[in-house]
Amino acid sequence: MTPKYPATIILLVLLILTSAFTVQAQENKFNLMPVPSEIKIGKGHFLLDSTFAACVTGTADPRIHNAASRFLRRLANRTGLFIQQDFVIPREKNKHSVLFIQVERPGRLIVGEDESYTLKIEDDEIIVSAVTDLGAMHGLETLLQLLKGDSEGYFFPEVEIKDAPRFPWRGLMIDVSRHFFPLDLIRRNLDAMAAVKMNVFHWHLSDDQGIRVESKVYPKLHELGSDGIYYTQEEIKALVKYAADRGIRVIPEFDVPGHSSAFLTAYPEFASAPGPYKIERRWGIFDPTFDPTIEKTYEFFDRFFGEMTSLFPDEYFHIGGDENNGRQWDNNKNIQKFMKDNNIKDNHELQAYFNKRLVDILNKYNKKMVGWDEILNPDMPKNILIQSWRGIKSLAESARHGYQGILSNGYYIDLVQPASFHYLNDPIPDSLNLSAEEKKFILGGEATSWAELVTLETVESRIWPRTAVIAERLWSPAYVRDVDDMYKRLERMSFLLEEHGLLHQKNYEMMLRRLTDNHDIKALKTIADILEPVKIYNRHFQGKVHVQHSPYTRTVDAARPESMTAREFNLLVDKYIQTKDAPVLDILRGMLIKWESNHAELVKLMEVSPIIKELEPHSLNLVKLSRTALDALDLMTSNRLPSNEWLEQSKLAIENAKKPHGQTEFAITGAVEKLLKHNGWIK
Amino acid sequence: MTPKYPATIILLVLLILTSAFTVQAQENKFNLMPVPSEIKIGKGHFLLDSTFAACVTGTADPRIHNAASRFLRRLANRTGLFIQQDFVIPREKNKHSVLFIQVERPGRLIVGEDESYTLKIEDDEIIVSAVTDLGAMHGLETLLQLLKGDSEGYFFPEVEIKDAPRFPWRGLMIDVSRHFFPLDLIRRNLDAMAAVKMNVFHWHLSDDQGIRVESKVYPKLHELGSDGIYYTQEEIKALVKYAADRGIRVIPEFDVPGHSSAFLTAYPEFASAPGPYKIERRWGIFDPTFDPTIEKTYEFFDRFFGEMTSLFPDEYFHIGGDENNGRQWDNNKNIQKFMKDNNIKDNHELQAYFNKRLVDILNKYNKKMVGWDEILNPDMPKNILIQSWRGIKSLAESARHGYQGILSNGYYIDLVQPASFHYLNDPIPDSLNLSAEEKKFILGGEATSWAELVTLETVESRIWPRTAVIAERLWSPAYVRDVDDMYKRLERMSFLLEEHGLLHQKNYEMMLRRLTDNHDIKALKTIADILEPVKIYNRHFQGKVHVQHSPYTRTVDAARPESMTAREFNLLVDKYIQTKDAPVLDILRGMLIKWESNHAELVKLMEVSPIIKELEPHSLNLVKLSRTALDALDLMTSNRLPSNEWLEQSKLAIENAKKPHGQTEFAITGAVEKLLKHNGWIK
Repeated sequence: MTPKYPATIILLVLLILTSAFTVQAQENKFNLMPVPSEIKIGKGHFLLDSTFAACVTGTADPRIHNAASRFLRRLANRTGLFIQQDFVIPREKNKHSVLFIQVERPGRLIVGEDESYTLKIEDDEIIVSAVTDLGAMHGLETLLQLLKGDSEGYFFPEVEIKDAPRFPWRGLMIDVSRHFFPLDLIRRNLDAMAAVKMNVFHWHLSDDQGIRVESKVYPKLHELGSDGIYYTQEEIKALVKYAADRGIRVIPEFDVPGHSSAFLTAYPEFASAPGPYKIERRWGIFDPTFDPTIEKTYEFFDRFFGEMTSLFPDEYFHIGGDENNGRQWDNNKNIQKFMKDNNIKDNHELQAYFNKRLVDILNKYNKKMVGWDEILNPDMPKNILIQSWRGIKSLAESARHGYQGILSNGYYIDLVQPASFHYLNDPIPDSLNLSAEEKKFILGGEATSWAELVTLETVESRIWPRTAVIAERLWSPAYVRDVDDMYKRLERMSFLLEEHGLLHQKNYEMMLRRLTDNHDIKALKTIADILEPVKIYNRHFQGKVHVQHSPYTRTVDAARPESMTAREFNLLVDKYIQTKDAPVLDILRGMLIKWESNHAELVKLMEVSPIIKELEPHSLNLVKLSRTALDALDLMTSNRLPSNEWLEQSKLAIENAKKPHGQTEFAITGAVEKLLKHNGWIK
Repeated sequence: MTPKYPATIILLVLLILTSAFTVQAQENKFNLMPVPSEIKIGKGHFLLDSTFAACVTGTADPRIHNAASRFLRRLANRTGLFIQQDFVIPREKNKHSVLFIQVERPGRLIVGEDESYTLKIEDDEIIVSAVTDLGAMHGLETLLQLLKGDSEGYFFPEVEIKDAPRFPWRGLMIDVSRHFFPLDLIRRNLDAMAAVKMNVFHWHLSDDQGIRVESKVYPKLHELGSDGIYYTQEEIKALVKYAADRGIRVIPEFDVPGHSSAFLTAYPEFASAPGPYKIERRWGIFDPTFDPTIEKTYEFFDRFFGEMTSLFPDEYFHIGGDENNGRQWDNNKNIQKFMKDNNIKDNHELQAYFNKRLVDILNKYNKKMVGWDEILNPDMPKNILIQSWRGIKSLAESARHGYQGILSNGYYIDLVQPASFHYLNDPIPDSLNLSAEEKKFILGGEATSWAELVTLETVESRIWPRTAVIAERLWSPAYVRDVDDMYKRLERMSFLLEEHGLLHQKNYEMMLRRLTDNHDIKALKTIADILEPVKIYNRHFQGKVHVQHSPYTRTVDAARPESMTAREFNLLVDKYIQTKDAPVLDILRGMLIKWESNHAELVKLMEVSPIIKELEPHSLNLVKLSRTALDALDLMTSNRLPSNEWLEQSKLAIENAKKPHGQTEFAITGAVEKLLKHNGWIK
């Protein structure tokens, strides 16, 4: 529940909507996310008090003790209990111990490590049992999700859970080049990843707009290629440790040979065309590209990767490899000659040559190469891993050729698509014609947060909560696909994620306050609640040229990627069409009247806050759209037919309301249109 | 305005209250904070568009260019204008330049540096002119505060401002030992300090509960004395640079010889009693104290201060020196013998001996010593600076003896007192019997944020916005003392401060969401809005023993230090008593009815969220208190007298409502009592 509407109305909405949901599987009654593989539910419960204490048994390293201590703090923070145990210490069985964490051995941060766990809650003790501490940490997250309160106090319900991930690679990529994000933000996102059982943080550290690492071997990289905004090596080591403490691998990405304006700003001598270069401020695909035909390029990568691989202990290392437009190669005579001399027939083959050289370098440092689809080439060795932005088919194709792959197509969370879209996007859909052996090459997937259009104020609202449903897709059994149930659990998860300090919820009203210059946000919120940013890449094509230093503080930035108010409205329209329930009608009418009457108040705000003036056409369209829907409901309830004049006006109202303004669009237009279509008034 | 009430009601409240305000000085019509020394207001305005560009003239270093670039980004973020200029570059006069920043020379970060500026806004250009870039940066902050919007767009009003600080030392101390705060938090607090023209960040880096710096000379300090939570030297250098870029000096504090449990955990050999020691988890004054009688203590400080002074370029260095309880000294025979042999008559003299030794060490490193009142001793050299936690009298006494001093008594923002209290606390009140020469020894003051009862979720709500009024006290002319006007401007300043990412406003509802387990927060907010944490140190004496790992997530932590809803209610009661205005009565009744009827909803929340059960007695008392006030208003409007029975009940209701529960107390009780007193019904 959110504070959008009074509790009574929310209750009513829930009661009304519940019957529209698929019948809930019993395992989902605790709103766990991701849903565990197996759960048995008892009737008892473990009642909490401040003597609650934990201990670890088995062969464990400090990681699980620290995780257990953090668990105690989170439990205290949620319950207000002054839990007495301060730290969970090795080999110390607190006499009050009631939570027993049993691990066989420390987990290694490698692909396919055992992450399974069992969790057993009884009236007087709780046992989290796992082969590795990685599994045990997942168990502790599940346990925290099970916390409940009633008039007796806080308790954990009696359950027995057996759980293990479906895929071994469950990642989130964050681009810190286009806009930089400070380490605090990265750290709380790692906490959030751990909370939804993700285990790979892919750090997109270089692009045309900046290199974000300190290099001691090539210091001009951070000195000239970063605007002074980068992570020091000390910071990187600490971040890798922080992630490892949460069971998360860190994969760095240095995107080459294209996407390299920042690299070549620092070292133009490795470029395929004469410099000088400068850090790119615009968004798009640009020409600067490494020259793959000169040896000093590989000397550079040998030393640079040598330095970077020492910072990142993971066995995988990402070289990007995407979107090389080839222009500099086409125009460089030496490169053309090289291709001819070496029988390289096109740029794709030239890039494959480049990649193979990089594979050799990485192998020398005991690293496996990861790259985007473009690195795939039959000549490449089989120990590379393909990250597919192009799609499941290309991933399947890689698998058939014996290449490991992970899916990112369909998980581009920066494209502000609905959670359901990402949720139903399966790395191995039933339709995929792969053998059991081939399927094993598909290791999982990664959500990708590209950073052109986000700043530290907004990026978390683009990552969370939607990434949680990708985490579930990659962890839970494939058959867990109930969208309505997912949304119900997602709302709770979004709330729980705030515990880590994420700004995804709380920055919304802060941004509305700024947009109104601190006047009453109500009228702005009423309309912003049902607006969404235009989808996919449309924002780049609607009258504003966004660059790195543009303001990302407008309504389009405040608006959520997916409007839950609109979702509720849409469900209610469906429900009303099916049932003609009077209480549903009342709620719908209430929402529509609020929208219809909002304009007068919003206009007043525009007069003191010009930044929201761009919403004026939307606001006017909303008046007409709401009126159309109200009229349609009236006609339906009174069994009357619309006049032709009304129909024409209404079609126009709907068409107008579909138009984007200020790079936002209404998320309720389809439902209004549905009302008319359902009655056969329009096609 | 805040979204607490519909705009119409807020407007009404403002209209009603305005006449209660002292007549506004014209200079305050732009809500500037701190109020500038001199302002002339014209009739024109400078209209903004996206071609807006800035340039710097004069002898300037990169600092002012970076500040000007940041200014452009903030302007773009507030207005949504796609301002074309990306960076303000040295020696580049943008052809669109309309903002001219003229500086004579780079400012030095020393006490008493010229921080004055003039700001002239005309229809077609804006000139910020200053001797130093420090002054120019203050001018840019003033300019940003002047931004306004109307139906024509965004503009700066025509003004001419001449401004300079009253005191050269305007500081904020943050304790990072009791609870640690990450650098992002420190950085945004530095931004906020710059926004209110503060210039000293006092970093309380060590205490019994932890040492927060990396030491390469004495690595056990951070290894054993910090729980692994400390700033690295690289981070400290970067932070000092960040502060300097904003015209802020950084003064480190290492609190010795007391408050040193963490020091002595690492190096017990310097203690006045045998170890081992451990990091303190409780709050209070503890025994562990350095041994001032052994030479190796001074060898330690020589090397440690030598290392630390190299990290902190400021000429001042804080050694704490407070609250040494002397127990270890009393009980150590060698120390007692040393005192006898050296004719040291008591612990205060012994500490003076210790301090003198430290002064010698610090002087060697070209540092002046700062310490709390206790370091004052006639034998101390005159180049030390006293930070007074004891009070203005002790500060005046220091000044008379020729010691520089700054005031912190009355600026202890962790004690959750009202802004007005801090605002009226002047370092040199008229009553102070000091000569003009003596007054010069009083350099200013510092707000102090002690961290026993705050975490990174709550600390900013304790620092901001109230610290802004201390900033004004230290910057603006002494005669600027209108409390009502201050509150009006403070509300705007609190809003503007959110721009820097501060959590002081947005964490309130986040914490209420957690307290309700994500149910509708309305009923909780209704009561929390008029509750304040118990004042001064009372929280330590009300049934809960708070330690470092206690939960700081309860209602007392969410509640604001000063309830603005209560302030509004109190002003309305005053107004009604004076005027008997019917519209005032309506608003009062509306508030009281809401409070009276809140209990039923709150009880429902308690049933799902046991953490708020502690509010039950408060909530029941609020019902009766509201009823008392409603009855009193009814009696007043109908000119009737209360019955004795009612009077007894009402007195009881008021007495009960005064009692704290859950370490919170109502901020409206006095106003209700006033209603009864005014009528002569109670004394």
